[in-house]
Amino acid sequence: KSRTAILCAIADVVGVGLGVIIGYFSHPAPAAPIYPTENPTISKLLMDEMKAKNIMNNLKTLTSRPHIAGQEQEEIVLVDWIKQQWTEAGIDSIVVHPYDVLLSYPKQNDSNYVSIKLANGTEIEQSQRKELVIDAEQNDPNVVDPFNAYSPPGEPEAELVYVNFATIEDFIALNRTYKINTVGKICISRYGRIFRGDKAVHAELYGCIGLILYSDPLDYTVPWSGVYPEDWFPPTGAQRGTLWVDNGDPRTPNYPSIPSAWHQSNSSLTLPKIPVTPIGNIDAIKYLSKMGGPEVPTDWRGGMNITYRFGPGFALEHVNRYVMSGKNTVLIKMSVKTTNQVATIHNVIGYVRGAVEPDRYVLLGNHRDAWVFGAIDPSSGTATLMELVRGFGAMLKRGWRPRRTLVFCSWGAEEYGLIGSTEWVEELQKELQARAVAYLNVDIAVQGNYSLAANGVASLSQAVFDAAKTVSNPNPTEVSSGRLTLYDTWKLRYPASVGDKPSYYGLGSGSDFTAFLQIIGIPSVDLRHTYDQSIGLASYPVYHSVYETFELVNKFVDPGFKIHLAMAQVWGELARKLADVPILPVDCRVYATDLAQKRDALYQQYGSKMESNGIDFSQLNDTILIFTTSADNIHKRIASIDSTNAYETRMINDQLMQLERAFIDQNPLPGRVAYRHVISAPSQHNTYGSTAFPAVVDAMFDIDVDPDQTGRWDEVRRQYSILVFHILSAAATLNPTVPT
Amino acid sequence: KSRTAILCAIADVVGVGLGVIIGYFSHPAPAAPIYPTENPTISKLLMDEMKAKNIMNNLKTLTSRPHIAGQEQEEIVLVDWIKQQWTEAGIDSIVVHPYDVLLSYPKQNDSNYVSIKLANGTEIEQSQRKELVIDAEQNDPNVVDPFNAYSPPGEPEAELVYVNFATIEDFIALNRTYKINTVGKICISRYGRIFRGDKAVHAELYGCIGLILYSDPLDYTVPWSGVYPEDWFPPTGAQRGTLWVDNGDPRTPNYPSIPSAWHQSNSSLTLPKIPVTPIGNIDAIKYLSKMGGPEVPTDWRGGMNITYRFGPGFALEHVNRYVMSGKNTVLIKMSVKTTNQVATIHNVIGYVRGAVEPDRYVLLGNHRDAWVFGAIDPSSGTATLMELVRGFGAMLKRGWRPRRTLVFCSWGAEEYGLIGSTEWVEELQKELQARAVAYLNVDIAVQGNYSLAANGVASLSQAVFDAAKTVSNPNPTEVSSGRLTLYDTWKLRYPASVGDKPSYYGLGSGSDFTAFLQIIGIPSVDLRHTYDQSIGLASYPVYHSVYETFELVNKFVDPGFKIHLAMAQVWGELARKLADVPILPVDCRVYATDLAQKRDALYQQYGSKMESNGIDFSQLNDTILIFTTSADNIHKRIASIDSTNAYETRMINDQLMQLERAFIDQNPLPGRVAYRHVISAPSQHNTYGSTAFPAVVDAMFDIDVDPDQTGRWDEVRRQYSILVFHILSAAATLNPTVPT
Repeated sequence: KSRTAILCAIADVVGVGLGVIIGYFSHPAPAAPIYPTENPTISKLLMDEMKAKNIMNNLKTLTSRPHIAGQEQEEIVLVDWIKQQWTEAGIDSIVVHPYDVLLSYPKQNDSNYVSIKLANGTEIEQSQRKELVIDAEQNDPNVVDPFNAYSPPGEPEAELVYVNFATIEDFIALNRTYKINTVGKICISRYGRIFRGDKAVHAELYGCIGLILYSDPLDYTVPWSGVYPEDWFPPTGAQRGTLWVDNGDPRTPNYPSIPSAWHQSNSSLTLPKIPVTPIGNIDAIKYLSKMGGPEVPTDWRGGMNITYRFGPGFALEHVNRYVMSGKNTVLIKMSVKTTNQVATIHNVIGYVRGAVEPDRYVLLGNHRDAWVFGAIDPSSGTATLMELVRGFGAMLKRGWRPRRTLVFCSWGAEEYGLIGSTEWVEELQKELQARAVAYLNVDIAVQGNYSLAANGVASLSQAVFDAAKTVSNPNPTEVSSGRLTLYDTWKLRYPASVGDKPSYYGLGSGSDFTAFLQIIGIPSVDLRHTYDQSIGLASYPVYHSVYETFELVNKFVDPGFKIHLAMAQVWGELARKLADVPILPVDCRVYATDLAQKRDALYQQYGSKMESNGIDFSQLNDTILIFTTSADNIHKRIASIDSTNAYETRMINDQLMQLERAFIDQNPLPGRVAYRHVISAPSQHNTYGSTAFPAVVDAMFDIDVDPDQTGRWDEVRRQYSILVFHILSAAATLNPTVPT
Repeated sequence: KSRTAILCAIADVVGVGLGVIIGYFSHPAPAAPIYPTENPTISKLLMDEMKAKNIMNNLKTLTSRPHIAGQEQEEIVLVDWIKQQWTEAGIDSIVVHPYDVLLSYPKQNDSNYVSIKLANGTEIEQSQRKELVIDAEQNDPNVVDPFNAYSPPGEPEAELVYVNFATIEDFIALNRTYKINTVGKICISRYGRIFRGDKAVHAELYGCIGLILYSDPLDYTVPWSGVYPEDWFPPTGAQRGTLWVDNGDPRTPNYPSIPSAWHQSNSSLTLPKIPVTPIGNIDAIKYLSKMGGPEVPTDWRGGMNITYRFGPGFALEHVNRYVMSGKNTVLIKMSVKTTNQVATIHNVIGYVRGAVEPDRYVLLGNHRDAWVFGAIDPSSGTATLMELVRGFGAMLKRGWRPRRTLVFCSWGAEEYGLIGSTEWVEELQKELQARAVAYLNVDIAVQGNYSLAANGVASLSQAVFDAAKTVSNPNPTEVSSGRLTLYDTWKLRYPASVGDKPSYYGLGSGSDFTAFLQIIGIPSVDLRHTYDQSIGLASYPVYHSVYETFELVNKFVDPGFKIHLAMAQVWGELARKLADVPILPVDCRVYATDLAQKRDALYQQYGSKMESNGIDFSQLNDTILIFTTSADNIHKRIASIDSTNAYETRMINDQLMQLERAFIDQNPLPGRVAYRHVISAPSQHNTYGSTAFPAVVDAMFDIDVDPDQTGRWDEVRRQYSILVFHILSAAATLNPTVPT
């Protein structure tokens, strides 16, 4: 009986087991796929995968020879190297986009110079045509001598006038306050404060026939600094750089320079019409020390041990010393042989296909071209990008794949005016408009060991902070002071004016995020590790000079490349998060706060004047309140979202992604084909700077002296209404997609 | 033992049962939601739900009083009625969008007229200021007398010149061939062939100081037609209509007329500067019969029993007859008291929320405003829309809900220049850009009993055909001939020139699809049931006259309202399909064919001339081949798609939806702020017409006489390159979103 019972029990157990199997498989299988979700462990795995030494080796390779845009080293050797490296890294696909574009070069056997020309035709005090070779590694036949791209050739001779930074305010002051006439003169301006291209625009506007740009020690070094090669200030260096104030191939505004492109004729290009050339501190002193005319005011003085004077022309003592023939002319002469040339440039684009949403792109970009060796600008960034691609490739090999597609971009010809990135954005505009989640730019990765600095759209600030919090501090002193992450040092050294956060400002122009943000409205971020920016340097001393070499970086900027590694980690973590989390880390509420701050700043600057001309600030106030409510509400909806519902998730993400698009005007800012963002765009008079509410502020600029007060105020009112409309429109994009 | 065995067996069965239960619930539940898919049975249920009698009653209500834009009947009474009807229908939400816009009205106690003015100041042969009331239902104090909107007021007096249709070609012929000077003259033009606003532009361009528009019987009736009220040709009617050639509020180009909007000053509006007024056939004969000058060529002759002459001025016999004072002046005088006025207009927008993708919109729109009673234009369409909304409401009550959101739009002030729809698209541009799947317009639903006619973007032609195939033929004669559906009669009566299909052409302008298609690139369709368009009517005879009444429709156009019902059905079925099927019924391959046909047409018209000026047609050919390949490939991918994968489905649908966006240029067509579509836009010289490759064709127009041949050909080349680029860009949007 017990045997029967045992058999029975066995049968029962078997029966239960059978039943479980039947029951299990009789259940309807999930009809819809379950999508993989974020794998947060990848964050640390990726960081650990990347090595400082690899970045160092990348930088060595990248800087082994000069690699200016349009030339063999840049367009063939490095393009091939990047393709090969990325292929080895194992990313999914690589596409090279070539473009024929207008570049500019000096005449290598007759380089540009400045001199003092005497009445008898003798030229004295000629500036150096080449930068002095101090270390052997600067010695390369392919070094392109100092020049400003897109200067026309010319040999103007005229009296010299000192114009400070050649800002629009400087020229206004020269005219109105100091009564110095610049018409027909050669101007000399210090580098710094604004984009050099705007200096040329202003000089041309005020009638100058030539412009000399020089680096004043006040702006490019500090009193406690030594001189190259003991420290990184080389008085013999000269800052190369473009003068092109719009972006992309100057011959194809708004459209890509593809083979079927139409090109503007040379005569209708909006390039500078006066010769411009850069000189170093060592040469500038020759001319500035001899100038006549009244002394400049205190804030116009540079750091050389001379008396800074306006001119025009040289002081009588110097004229008398030189003039022997009796003709009382001692002029500055510029010899500029720079000419424009069409060349082929290349963008290299690498893809890691998204597992769930391959049609959503997180883009990471850096330019490849340099004026000379470019060890800081941009190869510190390129070396970092290369290691980051290798790191992501290693994650792919572990079986990981991000939710969205990662797009790695190596841009050509950025130095000439963001040409590679602009042409590509123009070409892929429709795809990017529909699909790009964010563009993350690193131009220079490391130009100093002081702190991370970030600029970007307001809605991504928190995502950048969060990424910086995950990265170990590369500075051992900081770590021993208890600041364990990049974020901690950033917050200490660059604190925000409000709140317990690091500072994080809007984007002007000056690097490859511009087309993404300003043509399409793709949320963009620009990351860089800097020197202490409070000491007032216009840029790091060797910027765009022949001295930007591997050894300089290795010796002064980041020995051991730990900071480079940290930059790879913060960039990678930000990209990983944007590419992998189900709900995009976009914070619309921060945008609301940012708008309110911008409104306050506008009101402080121009409020009473605008109100007394009939502009109703309550419209802007009310509009920002509406935006704030919409922003709060979408985040409430996000908090209760069912993220397994693909369509609901995608809907919210699309709204978050599209927010920045809502600030793009269908028409460009007045007179500026390259800019359409109504909240933040480069200032009209300084392409580097970011201006809040740019069209309104531009219309207000110096309004009192405009003879057409009616027309000008009408333009202010028009731009104000366009601004208010776009904020309302942005609020609407955040609201529930069907009104209730 | 057997009892034990039975117990054992029972235990076993219980065990199995227990196991099944355990097994069933131990299975992981589907983690992702299963989305409802198309319910095709709704198609027939919706058709059966709708009733001709309801449409008839709707039309009665809508046409009970004149309802011109900006006035109480239109903006308050009908808006309230629509809201109330839609609320009763049970749709999810209704939003009313008001806009203050510039409209135009005649002076009701001093209506516009034309007369012959003698030297002594006497005016004779004055035209009727009001249309003759023939039936009591035309008698309403709110009838606004014939006028052309946005004419300036004025009383010009001058000799009369007959300018045929006032096309640009007519004026060129007048100038070059017939040597008739129109400067300082009043022109008289027949209505038809082109948009009346363009006639005014041309007349102004050629120096006329006034323009009279009249309906010639050749263009507005047929020999076998009777006269109103026996048939629908009323010689006493006059065609009202706008002269505004751009779209939307003339004061706010490109931006919505919301409360914060900036308005152009009156002096900078681009409205007509010469008085324009319409007259009827009965009046035109008084002036045209007396004209002097040479006889016009055959194709310039109208259908009145007179000798058509150019002028200028009257024939000597008439001058002699009238002139008694000896002064030899007998002039035409126009008295136009029309003025512009700001008024508030309203769009009523109703929503049916999508169950799966609420952020994808299928829009259905019709305008509500009429020049007078508007029984055909637009209330035949409005009456149909109302029944369609009721029908969809009934489906909601059955528990159905479409996959995507349906948006029903009742537009204000279309007659003045598509104002309601344009302002709304301008205001919601960013949301629509991201979310709108298609816009389906019905302006006039029924203007004849001959056949359905459809215009639209190429990619939706097959969807329109498929919808028409599902709708029973409202014509019993056709049914008895075996043509059971709307499609069958359409294919017979308007066959396509190629293939066994009905004809289906591109969209010009002239109704509310314009802003959707031309500003954003939303795929659009325009449906209408027409009279036989081969008989050469410029429009149906009572168009825009006081005679467009309910009884006229009930008596002549669609007794029984069966055609109206068929229109509700085809419109509804097209919308249902676009809103409900998982993969959008967008056919990119048809677009490829359409592009090839357009290229052939361009080549035939201008190919040799363009090639001899260095334009490489192989670029366009190659580009269209690339597009064709991309189109073929996306449909191959669609064929193998896993439509339970939400992200994959959405990706493909987004690509299909975005295709049309790719043809929108970021810059408007040259000199035309309202148009950005590079493949198809209204012709520059006829806003009603659709021009293929409009910017290229406009640049080629009359190119030989341009004194600046270099500049003009450069513009042709520029526009050609922009066209080629956009086709390449469109092809790219269809390619896999990550390159392989």
